[in-house]
Amino acid sequence: MFEGVRDYKTFVGHALPGSFFLIAGLWWAGKYSLWYTTLRNKSLGSTSTRLASRSTQRRLEVIEGSRIVTFCVPGMLAEQFVADGPRLHLYDYSEHHWDRLHNWQHSTMYLFFGLAGAMSLIVHTTDAAPLALDRLMLAIAFFIEGFLFLYHLHGRAMLDVHVHQLLLFCVFGEAMVSFLEVFHRGNILLELLRASLTILQGSWFWQIGFVLYSPSGAEWDQMDHNNMMFITMCYCWHLVFSLLVVMNMSVASTLIKFDPMSNAWIQEAGLLKRLLRRLTLILIHQW
Amino acid sequence: MFEGVRDYKTFVGHALPGSFFLIAGLWWAGKYSLWYTTLRNKSLGSTSTRLASRSTQRRLEVIEGSRIVTFCVPGMLAEQFVADGPRLHLYDYSEHHWDRLHNWQHSTMYLFFGLAGAMSLIVHTTDAAPLALDRLMLAIAFFIEGFLFLYHLHGRAMLDVHVHQLLLFCVFGEAMVSFLEVFHRGNILLELLRASLTILQGSWFWQIGFVLYSPSGAEWDQMDHNNMMFITMCYCWHLVFSLLVVMNMSVASTLIKFDPMSNAWIQEAGLLKRLLRRLTLILIHQW
Amino acid sequence: MFEGVRDYKTFVGHALPGSFFLIAGLWWAGKYSLWYTTLRNKSLGSTSTRLASRSTQRRLEVIEGSRIVTFCVPGMLAEQFVADGPRLHLYDYSEHHWDRLHNWQHSTMYLFFGLAGAMSLIVHTTDAAPLALDRLMLAIAFFIEGFLFLYHLHGRAMLDVHVHQLLLFCVFGEAMVSFLEVFHRGNILLELLRASLTILQGSWFWQIGFVLYSPSGAEWDQMDHNNMMFITMCYCWHLVFSLLVVMNMSVASTLIKFDPMSNAWIQEAGLLKRLLRRLTLILIHQW
Amino acid sequence: MFEGVRDYKTFVGHALPGSFFLIAGLWWAGKYSLWYTTLRNKSLGSTSTRLASRSTQRRLEVIEGSRIVTFCVPGMLAEQFVADGPRLHLYDYSEHHWDRLHNWQHSTMYLFFGLAGAMSLIVHTTDAAPLALDRLMLAIAFFIEGFLFLYHLHGRAMLDVHVHQLLLFCVFGEAMVSFLEVFHRGNILLELLRASLTILQGSWFWQIGFVLYSPSGAEWDQMDHNNMMFITMCYCWHLVFSLLVVMNMSVASTLIKFDPMSNAWIQEAGLLKRLLRRLTLILIHQW
Repeated sequence: MFEGVRDYKTFVGHALPGSFFLIAGLWWAGKYSLWYTTLRNKSLGSTSTRLASRSTQRRLEVIEGSRIVTFCVPGMLAEQFVADGPRLHLYDYSEHHWDRLHNWQHSTMYLFFGLAGAMSLIVHTTDAAPLALDRLMLAIAFFIEGFLFLYHLHGRAMLDVHVHQLLLFCVFGEAMVSFLEVFHRGNILLELLRASLTILQGSWFWQIGFVLYSPSGAEWDQMDHNNMMFITMCYCWHLVFSLLVVMNMSVASTLIKFDPMSNAWIQEAGLLKRLLRRLTLILIHQW
Repeated sequence: MFEGVRDYKTFVGHALPGSFFLIAGLWWAGKYSLWYTTLRNKSLGSTSTRLASRSTQRRLEVIEGSRIVTFCVPGMLAEQFVADGPRLHLYDYSEHHWDRLHNWQHSTMYLFFGLAGAMSLIVHTTDAAPLALDRLMLAIAFFIEGFLFLYHLHGRAMLDVHVHQLLLFCVFGEAMVSFLEVFHRGNILLELLRASLTILQGSWFWQIGFVLYSPSGAEWDQMDHNNMMFITMCYCWHLVFSLLVVMNMSVASTLIKFDPMSNAWIQEAGLLKRLLRRLTLILIHQW
Repeated sequence: MFEGVRDYKTFVGHALPGSFFLIAGLWWAGKYSLWYTTLRNKSLGSTSTRLASRSTQRRLEVIEGSRIVTFCVPGMLAEQFVADGPRLHLYDYSEHHWDRLHNWQHSTMYLFFGLAGAMSLIVHTTDAAPLALDRLMLAIAFFIEGFLFLYHLHGRAMLDVHVHQLLLFCVFGEAMVSFLEVFHRGNILLELLRASLTILQGSWFWQIGFVLYSPSGAEWDQMDHNNMMFITMCYCWHLVFSLLVVMNMSVASTLIKFDPMSNAWIQEAGLLKRLLRRLTLILIHQW
Repeated sequence: MFEGVRDYKTFVGHALPGSFFLIAGLWWAGKYSLWYTTLRNKSLGSTSTRLASRSTQRRLEVIEGSRIVTFCVPGMLAEQFVADGPRLHLYDYSEHHWDRLHNWQHSTMYLFFGLAGAMSLIVHTTDAAPLALDRLMLAIAFFIEGFLFLYHLHGRAMLDVHVHQLLLFCVFGEAMVSFLEVFHRGNILLELLRASLTILQGSWFWQIGFVLYSPSGAEWDQMDHNNMMFITMCYCWHLVFSLLVVMNMSVASTLIKFDPMSNAWIQEAGLLKRLLRRLTLILIHQW
């Protein structure tokens, strides 16, 4: 079924980050939708509710930040110490060339996202830094991801270059939206747009895997202009898909009733579990 | 008179969207001009008038949204099921190529505009979503239109590429203006600029039809640089035309007197009819 | 001294718009500097002074708008009806090519600037339109100027293309600054930046005339890369020059004392003359 | 060890501006971090403290501006009058070519930074000009630096062009951030981002020196695509380094206690010395 071990590995190498971005996008879509609903319901509630939800928010942010860090650090290490990783060797002196630059580049990307997560942790656990710092670091992390991809494509086939260029649209889009959030923090539209673009990035990584290193062994004609045109249109369909997912989650979240009691209960009995269960329910409810 | 059936079809294929964008542009120019006038007169009116005009606004938005949807859904279906449409077949397995990608691309564009219309409906009938969502979706729809055109032009003749590139200026311009409206909602200048660019897009579609698939059978030299220079200038004249139309409608709308009585009457007796009649009067008044 | 009549004409064709932009830039630098000073002094003055200065402002704007119109309409006519103008003929049917497109392009540019002037007149004489409309039209006029230049350069020599590309930096810069003024009206920095860029454009037109159609008959090697590098640097010097001029005028304007008496007098006895004299004095005072 | 005198000179020619930008970036990181801390502590202090710190700020700005001027004027002169400088000769009439354009270009860059420093001096010593003028001039100075580099690279080897293009990212980034500060003055994130990008620029100048004119005499293969990919990644590491430096300084500055007494003392007994010592302490404290 697979052409070879290498192709299979590369397919997984695209599916893995794709899955992570999909999860991140869904998480953000759910988080910001629920907050937006809470904010609208809160006008009816008391001050104590408001304080409670603010501390809930902070705890969610801390959880998110620590998850990002605990995912990026092993990711960096894995890229270095897997079977054919560079093991922190940067230059192969025997053959006079750079050693496995792709692994190093992926490590660098993980590093920036890890830094963004760490920054988010610092911002939300201490009062030392201004709040908007987490968005600025996120914008830088996305920018660097796109920046490294940009100089990654030299000398590849036309279709290969094209599918990666399409990826750049959403990566730089996310960088721009995150940067705008530095000045317009709490704008629900920007937050949901970021979530949509992240889901788009995730599903597009899967698409790249299927187009370039298809597990079924099918090969696309890299020089056919019709393939280019189809892929461009396909990208738009991924965007429609991600927009609809985010919208459905957003609408579903408004159907959930928040009452102060449950809100207090959340804080006591495993906040994350309940929220994840809710998100799952919303997702199941949709399909 | 026509070189062939195919050329005629392509001419109609440019004239049709052109007409729709022209109508949309004129509608927006009229709507926002009237609102701006009402807003200025309202400072003299009572609270009840203000409430009345707000519900009028909402009804107009709902009508606009439903019109867009009822136009885009048949458009999508027509692209699929016309005589030589793909009928939802995406890949021709017998000849191993993608099936009528142009129809599919047009369907995709309709899909995004339909989505923008549906979003506008949801925003203005329920309170679930933030208001600015309609502009964000509009910005995305225009961006996708330009995005698909951008990768549409490979391997065509110089003049053909050029007239479509000029189209991109106003399409991306509309996307940018709509995105700015997310942050500066109700800015009359941005709204009228959007209307102007939409009229420009509509009239330019007609121009493309006449240049590339002229019904009179005249053919332009696709490689003559003088033709390029003339077409560029011609584009500017279309812009002047659209700016003047929007300005005239805007000025004419200030001559119409709004009194609370008629405003209440509007709500009772066929809102749309009267408004369309007014817009027609304004247009007749101009020429 | 001149290589031929045609070169001389082209030199004048660059010097003339250059002079007009120089005058416009100096006028703006003076106008906004004086207003800024008045505004700062006004906090000490009475309400009547404030009203007086506001009506003075409006009258200055009206004078500016009408000057622009009375300059652009003859400009358009001159481009059409000079000795070798197209006289409103667009297409030469005998030889089957477009007729004197350059004159038509210049007419188009005049048209947009004339429209911007007319809009400024309408905005400042009636209350029908929002104030920021004058800046929006100015932004469009500058954008169209750059847009037409952009497709003007096909097939010329390297240095010729380069000096015109440098011009585009300040033209699009002015368009961007004017567009920003729609949202940040009255920001003295944007106003002075616009004035500086306009002076830069004016002096650069003169420079282009001297480089490409030097009256002394000297010819530059169009293919020498050193010339390109020198011209780029030269452009920066023009910018320094224009920045220093605007700054000096700005500083000098703060030395002038405004008292309510003279302010009232201005309105009665030839506003423009006195102001122009003042500007001249400032300029003389500098050099 | 060195290949020749020329290479050594060019290495120093990159190390020197690199060091200056490093110092400027560290200075800004320290200055804005301390101000941010002071601002947060000030809410506990009295009015007199607030006034004191405002005058301290102004004095710091004046010192900064005068330092920039006293560094740029000799820089300009040095570029002209060093052993092989052009000594103000612009054109070599004997050989008919421009004379040492590189020195002239560097002089021009110094000129713009000097102008920015002088403007900062004027803004902070007099009340004549609006505050944001210093940022606008800084934006223009960075823009011109990037602009001159952009047309500097014609006909060089691939790697040479690439390392300089990477430099442009941070130079234009600084220009953009400074321009945004015109509208968002006092935004600590923009200020620290500017500091980071300046440190990045400084360390990248050193990197360019080591890559292109290595003092160890090692030569990089200018045509190897792997080198390109490594250099791109290396640029990201420089960014991480500069972000971490700024963050550490920022966090360290919050550990310093400011009390009104010491604040008053600062004004009396050599402001700059103490601050520099503090910055040094912070730096030592970090490593």
